[in-house]
Amino acid sequence: MKNRTIDSYSEFELIDTISKKITLSHSKNIIVGSGDDSAVYNTNKNAVTVTSIDSFVENIHWEKDKQNYCDIGWKTVNAAVSDLAAMGATGRYITIACNLKKSMLYDDFLLLIKGFIKATNVLNIDIIGGNLSRTKETTITINAIGEINKKSGKGNIMKRSSATIGDKIALSGKIGGAAAGRYLLSNKNIKIKNKNLIKLFHKPNARVDIAEKMLNCGVKCAIDISDGLMQDLSHICNDSQVDAIIEKTDIPLYKKSIEILGLQKAYELGLNGGEDYELLFTANQQTLVELKKNKIAFYVIGDIIDRKKHKRSSTISLTDGEKIYKISQGKGWDHFQNEQ
Amino acid sequence: MKNRTIDSYSEFELIDTISKKITLSHSKNIIVGSGDDSAVYNTNKNAVTVTSIDSFVENIHWEKDKQNYCDIGWKTVNAAVSDLAAMGATGRYITIACNLKKSMLYDDFLLLIKGFIKATNVLNIDIIGGNLSRTKETTITINAIGEINKKSGKGNIMKRSSATIGDKIALSGKIGGAAAGRYLLSNKNIKIKNKNLIKLFHKPNARVDIAEKMLNCGVKCAIDISDGLMQDLSHICNDSQVDAIIEKTDIPLYKKSIEILGLQKAYELGLNGGEDYELLFTANQQTLVELKKNKIAFYVIGDIIDRKKHKRSSTISLTDGEKIYKISQGKGWDHFQNEQ
Repeated sequence: MKNRTIDSYSEFELIDTISKKITLSHSKNIIVGSGDDSAVYNTNKNAVTVTSIDSFVENIHWEKDKQNYCDIGWKTVNAAVSDLAAMGATGRYITIACNLKKSMLYDDFLLLIKGFIKATNVLNIDIIGGNLSRTKETTITINAIGEINKKSGKGNIMKRSSATIGDKIALSGKIGGAAAGRYLLSNKNIKIKNKNLIKLFHKPNARVDIAEKMLNCGVKCAIDISDGLMQDLSHICNDSQVDAIIEKTDIPLYKKSIEILGLQKAYELGLNGGEDYELLFTANQQTLVELKKNKIAFYVIGDIIDRKKHKRSSTISLTDGEKIYKISQGKGWDHFQNEQ
Repeated sequence: MKNRTIDSYSEFELIDTISKKITLSHSKNIIVGSGDDSAVYNTNKNAVTVTSIDSFVENIHWEKDKQNYCDIGWKTVNAAVSDLAAMGATGRYITIACNLKKSMLYDDFLLLIKGFIKATNVLNIDIIGGNLSRTKETTITINAIGEINKKSGKGNIMKRSSATIGDKIALSGKIGGAAAGRYLLSNKNIKIKNKNLIKLFHKPNARVDIAEKMLNCGVKCAIDISDGLMQDLSHICNDSQVDAIIEKTDIPLYKKSIEILGLQKAYELGLNGGEDYELLFTANQQTLVELKKNKIAFYVIGDIIDRKKHKRSSTISLTDGEKIYKISQGKGWDHFQNEQ
């Protein structure tokens, strides 16, 4: 076991190692520490602050030469702010650390900045700080800061750990589109390069438009689908100590994805593709009624059914009406082991 | 001029390009935007929030195999929090994004975490979030969040832009020690590897112990000496639109640095070496008296003498009592052009 490298461990094992070593000094002010989409701490009597850091790496989170830098700027800001939306927060400020390759073209640098600014304008947030360094590969790290109004949120925050037995599992929108776009781009054998699917991959939108409203309607548990439905649902189930069942045919897929890639591939990308930045949430019937009243669209895809049966990990069952596939651990996007 | 790479531009030219493109939407809440050590915004009636992002890159900010990862963890946290101290703030929370090489040993990963935790314990701050990615080279990005009590700060913040003609220029401690330590480590011809100097390089301390007290004493203008005295003083002078004179013999150097490296090299490292994380500040006589009363040690090294005479950049004159060297632009640590 001596001299093992970190590559022998999954991202989540390493995060777990860190989490276990951290004890908080200011715990009375911290409402949510590390381990959720964002951390939450008290700032004043009307609001709590929500903050999250996220890194994006060339050739992992985007492919050099396949994506223009304006889109990369757009996407990284939306992905960072999506972590705030997953808690029910409204974005306020971001700081951006750009580690840039020496060989980056100045024109690409300008496009990257343009993308950052376009996204912050649309999301109504401000860039209040940054850092530039020179590195061997380009990485962009964004820290996002937002807030939740205590009154409108009624003192609540959407957390991964708040799923309750009897809750319905729902999605704020269709999934698998971004992954289908990525698949079209990387697969030379497929001639149809559907622009809408590719746009879903290149220019995702953080669901800040509905995040605070969902909180107001009573949603207590959410996560963003950046790692894939199965992976992110397993985060909810493990953190909430519950098991879940998903009705495969209720998963909302993009028609174009099914048309071009076939039903099986479209499901595969919907279940495990990630990068959708839709919100996956759980809610009771009363809350679902409230969401409908407030014209927030959603798709019910399953149920929180039981206390977690297995010690190691929650069980997520996938059914297509006939068969049930047991999945002991969600298979999604593990940044240490699934990448090339 | 077509297809120029970013390497043709200095770090500060690129930052300037970004700054000019940013317009703030929530400007009424933002007290200091990007461009200072940290950004500052209003949070509640008693305090303002101070935040800053900083990146550290293997083989630029530390040398692989020459520094243990516990020290790297310690140093990166202190360097990040130093940006808060430069504004007069007390640190509260940090988020850490680790982009780690696959080949990093798990034991080194554990040491890195240990260093983070040691530093946060001493600085009394909490790690409330993080991100792990796999990259070709290890980089660590830390976002620090602190606050300034409005009452104790009397509504003030230490800013780069607040130097006033007639102010004395002062340092919170000796400088050039960390750079001397780095020089000893990298120079094989020097046999004396003084432990104290090397420790100054490996384990700097953010001056959070005095930051808020300085503010209480009336200090309005400060910066941390991470890029080197001349570089950081030029930031103060340019942002404050003033010129300055430094009495070279008043610069407080480490005796051991002079003993081992000779006076000339010790001065060179004191002027341009950087990584000291002491605070460089300007203050009027009354404030200096207050600092003494409150037992805050400092060294006066020069004067803010005039409005900025040259359009392009402030003039910093260096005198040794006999000669005056005009330095039109501070030469310090430019992360894009001075590195290998």
